[in-house]
Parts: sequence; structure tokens; C-alpha cells
Amino acid sequence: MMISSHCSFGLPGWVEPFLEDWQEPLSTISVRMRLAIALAQENIHQKTGGPFGAVVVNEQTGELVAAGVNLVTTSGLSVAHAEIVALSLAQTALGEWNLSHAGPLQLVTTCEPCAMCFGAVPWSGVKSLICGARKKDAESAGFDEGDKPDQWVRSLQRRGIVVQCSVLRAEAAAVLALYREDGGAIYNADHGQHKD
Amino acid sequence: MMISSHCSFGLPGWVEPFLEDWQEPLSTISVRMRLAIALAQENIHQKTGGPFGAVVVNEQTGELVAAGVNLVTTSGLSVAHAEIVALSLAQTALGEWNLSHAGPLQLVTTCEPCAMCFGAVPWSGVKSLICGARKKDAESAGFDEGDKPDQWVRSLQRRGIVVQCSVLRAEAAAVLALYREDGGAIYNADHGQHKD
Repeated sequence: MMISSHCSFGLPGWVEPFLEDWQEPLSTISVRMRLAIALAQENIHQKTGGPFGAVVVNEQTGELVAAGVNLVTTSGLSVAHAEIVALSLAQTALGEWNLSHAGPLQLVTTCEPCAMCFGAVPWSGVKSLICGARKKDAESAGFDEGDKPDQWVRSLQRRGIVVQCSVLRAEAAAVLALYREDGGAIYNADHGQHKD
Repeated sequence: MMISSHCSFGLPGWVEPFLEDWQEPLSTISVRMRLAIALAQENIHQKTGGPFGAVVVNEQTGELVAAGVNLVTTSGLSVAHAEIVALSLAQTALGEWNLSHAGPLQLVTTCEPCAMCFGAVPWSGVKSLICGARKKDAESAGFDEGDKPDQWVRSLQRRGIVVQCSVLRAEAAAVLALYREDGGAIYNADHGQHKD
């Protein structure tokens, strides 16, 4: 095996026109979540990854800063969960890792973060986290979510991050269920199953 | 802000010749850890990121599969911790996210993983995790490590991943202390401090 020194990933080609077609201003948490859910749904339809979507928006102005979908199977990177993709693309747009320098930014994700994405949130500089489906919804669809601390919401709040869960939960969970019914790949690393 | 659709990071130019100069076969855990520590030390010296290094090796043959150093400040990506860099470069080399397909691979890191990197380990397909310094050593150097579940080692073991901590701990912790004495940047996102 050759040592690699460079790593990259990109959004599938359908995402940019999809965002251009989105008409509704991202002025409320519900609209932002509906966009994230629509991205997750289209990601299933286009077969470009797992059933998870996320957006980074300015929580005050509703400006869209970045969008992400799960790209694990298509990018070949296990970190390419929707949240990590959206945060990394927001940082790429900003040109630095600390998103707090770009205003009060919000990560809106179709599912409660897995153990990895939970840990990634405070390092990114976002000010709030909005989640749709719950851990048990993802587990019902066959995904392993990893183990977060029991007090994970409080852990984020202690770092100044506002957290709101179960926003449009039923709609977000329905996308996970659809993926399972469609026989979508549950990518896992032998030992247990794997998600987002 | 323009929406970005592509994200990438690369190892600094010094890493490849540094690895070529490394003579000792990676036949034991101690030698692997010494290489990871040497990478962390050189990352400080070259001012290319934080004081953390990691390697991915075949645990049976000692073949080097990937190397990583902390690149948060230089890549502008908060996820670019040494462990994530090494795992992602190993997956890039293999051409797929599931490292278990490339033999029994081992992640050797100079510090116990932060909350994010802990969560990332099971999704990668590695079979074992070897850590040098402990969480409190990184905290003493000023880094926030995030909150892992109390039973984080057991959480990995339940997923079939062997964990060994405190390998060359004193040497690994000394690199963290050196970074602090040198006045190295503690990159943090306003709310608390940030690591690896």
C-alpha cells in the first residue's frame, strides 16, 4: 500500500442545483430542518450515501453557509458524516476552522449526532445544534450511533452551545425508515454497525 | 460567503522525507509510539500544527499504512486532529472507508483520543488503539478534550477494538508540556479549549 499525503471529498453534483431550487427563506428552525431532511431524502434517491443531511446557517439571518450529506460510502471516508461534511465545508468557505468568527452559526442535522459528531461540535465554533430524529430512530434503522456521555446535551451547553432535539422528529425518522425499507447499505466495520 | 462543495487537506511537506529517514522497523508498540511522538515533536518544530501525532500500522507486520499530525490551524479544519488525519489518509490509500479490509490495522496516537476521535475509531475499521499521554496530560497543557463516556475503553472493546493506554506516557506527555512552554497556540472555539 502506498502512503497517501492528501485527502479530499466533495458534495455530489446534484446538491448545488438542489440548493438553487430551494425557494423558502431559512428563517425558522423548521424550514432549516426541512431543507436538511430534503437533502437526506435526495441523498437516498441519488444513491450518493446514507440517509442523513445537515446544514450550517447563520442563526440570526438564516443565510446558508454550508450543506452536507452523508458521503461515507461514496467518499471512502468513515468520517464523512453529514455533520462533519457540513462543518468542514463551512470552514472551507470561511477559510479557517473557527466558525464563531463568521457570526452565530447553527448546525441543523436530521439526526441526533453520533458519538463522533457529538465530539466534533464544540471544536467547530458553532453556537447551536438542532437535531431531528433521535438516536433510537437511527438504531431502529440499523445504525450504530456509538456511545455518548449520558449528559451529552449538558456537555455541549457547558461549552456555550444551545441544543434543541426532536425538531420535526417524525419526518426525519421517516427518512431513516425509508432507507431501511429500500435496503440501503448499513455501512459498518465488522464490529457492530455504523451511521450518519 | 460562497457555498463550498469541496474540502481537502494534506500532510505538510516535511512528513514524507521524515518518514523516509525513519530507520527502525515498526515491529513493536513502543517503536510505533516513538514514531508518533517524533512526528508530534517535529510538527511543533515546523510550526505546522498542534502537538499530536498518530500512525496507522498493520499490527501483525508493522507495515506503515498512514501517518498523521494535527493540522487544525494549518488546514483550517477543526476535525483535522492527528487521529482523523491518519485514519482518513489510510482510507484514501486503501480506497475505501473500511480499514478492516486491509488486515488488522492499529491506530497509534500520542494522546488518549478526544471525544470526537474516540467516536471516530469504531467507524474506521481499525482493530486496536494504542495511546501515549492521558487526557489529564493534554488538559495540563491547556487543551479541552471534550467529554467521553466514563466507560469509553469498554465501549471500544465491546466493538472488538483492543485498547492500550499510557504507552510511553512520560515521553508523550513531555511533548505536550514542551508545546505549552513554547507558547504554542491553544486553538479553541471561544467556549472552552480545544485539542489534537
